[in-house]
Amino acid sequence: MTQPQLCTFLADGEVRYGLVRPGGVVDLGSRLGKRWSGLREAIADAALNRLVDAGSALPLDFSEGEFRFLPPIEAPEKIICVGVNYPDRNEEYRDGQTAPGNPSLFVRFPGSFVGHETPLTRPKASPQLDYEGEIVFVIGKQGRHISESNALGHIAALSLANEGTIRDWARHAKFNVTQGKNFDGTGSIGPWIVPYTSESQLADIRLTTRVNGEIRQDDRTSRMIFSFRRLINYISTFTTLVPGDVILSGTPTGAGARFDPPRWLVPGDIIEIDADGIGVLRNGVTDET
Amino acid sequence: MTQPQLCTFLADGEVRYGLVRPGGVVDLGSRLGKRWSGLREAIADAALNRLVDAGSALPLDFSEGEFRFLPPIEAPEKIICVGVNYPDRNEEYRDGQTAPGNPSLFVRFPGSFVGHETPLTRPKASPQLDYEGEIVFVIGKQGRHISESNALGHIAALSLANEGTIRDWARHAKFNVTQGKNFDGTGSIGPWIVPYTSESQLADIRLTTRVNGEIRQDDRTSRMIFSFRRLINYISTFTTLVPGDVILSGTPTGAGARFDPPRWLVPGDIIEIDADGIGVLRNGVTDET
Repeated sequence: MTQPQLCTFLADGEVRYGLVRPGGVVDLGSRLGKRWSGLREAIADAALNRLVDAGSALPLDFSEGEFRFLPPIEAPEKIICVGVNYPDRNEEYRDGQTAPGNPSLFVRFPGSFVGHETPLTRPKASPQLDYEGEIVFVIGKQGRHISESNALGHIAALSLANEGTIRDWARHAKFNVTQGKNFDGTGSIGPWIVPYTSESQLADIRLTTRVNGEIRQDDRTSRMIFSFRRLINYISTFTTLVPGDVILSGTPTGAGARFDPPRWLVPGDIIEIDADGIGVLRNGVTDET
Repeated sequence: MTQPQLCTFLADGEVRYGLVRPGGVVDLGSRLGKRWSGLREAIADAALNRLVDAGSALPLDFSEGEFRFLPPIEAPEKIICVGVNYPDRNEEYRDGQTAPGNPSLFVRFPGSFVGHETPLTRPKASPQLDYEGEIVFVIGKQGRHISESNALGHIAALSLANEGTIRDWARHAKFNVTQGKNFDGTGSIGPWIVPYTSESQLADIRLTTRVNGEIRQDDRTSRMIFSFRRLINYISTFTTLVPGDVILSGTPTGAGARFDPPRWLVPGDIIEIDADGIGVLRNGVTDET
């Protein structure tokens, strides 16, 4: 069953949001923008289902090819990423350490992401552009010290990310991966968000990454080291989660850095992140100009 | 010579911005808010000097005690922090590694900071609240791949930070210090911003941290491992800096974790971050409720 899909997009030179339907998109922002200026504001008002209902009864405003997908949440207060969250991934670091007791967390800025079908940027600074397919969840309800039992009630929607990384810059300094994770336009989020209604949407779904059709990453969310419930509980121990916050839940083993020699992304490659019930996030690669 | 001081503050239940003058503050936001909704917007319009001029000719609107300082930039797109940037600080890690070739960078969220004179929060999760005094600079002009020779022209203003840290949570996971640096209300920025006009304002200024009057950190910016020019050049290699971005340039040796036994902050302590020409940022400590 296809879940409703809400997106942020660019058409006629304006940023809009709407409902994706076969063949195109219904522009809800132009009709409801005074009430909710973007999907973040609609999420804060618990209005995603109202958007879906509104869009289902309207004709398409833009057909495929007439608009461009942007990351679904334009300016989240926070984008938090989880490192090392699937089996075997810890071993990839070959540092002799056992699996960690708490999730590694880092932060990305909005400018490090593009939308679905916009090419990722291989920067001038390094050829080591690598993919990381991930499940994304968007916070719908503010909270701090959220218990695991209440955690899923704080999720508004699901999405996908290619948490594209410049590998040598992730170890460029003594601590922290910040710079390797924040080159402009090296990752992607989307294509859309799917409203969250049931734990079955994320409890045991398959997540795969393909490069030029070849499966490189393939795992299930039921195998995550830190579950969605645990992530929300842990993160909210230190920071207040607010509507629109975007959390990337970690990537399975099989990134390009794992191969010998490593298989970095190059212009011409097509990377697809695919998860049951959410969709397929697809991007090419282009060189920084 | 006292530099002009622009602040963001709370008075009569509203967030405002203004010019600090002896005895109080001139409310510029109520007069110019339609043109510049906050200091970030004024910075993006290169209008800080116009704000200073406007405020100098007006009477005080709020006297000391009638308003509360907030962090000067309300919602920066980015808050980037530099780790390990003064001599001896690298040695504090006792890991046998030599000084790093590139700056360690991490990110803080706005909610992890309070303003001048608002107590820092010691969280329920840990008693290891520690201080880190730092010079802050605020970006005034957008740029990527900014050369060291052009770097200082991208600075709009200077400020101070107590980059308060929960020590055991900075090493809670396999990688990254994110969680130890992002407990709600554990750091502070302010009291105000000072418009940047000349390299002498930051090239060789003294930075000290006092706890209950005792000097704990004491160094000069001329001894920074990575200069202001180098930081702007390096960070803009990967991300586009935009007006209002806030960068914390690292802390000298002497944090409480360095003592044996460590000297964590407790309610009743007064921490002061003091830098030539910028001011004194002062905070107490309170327990999370």
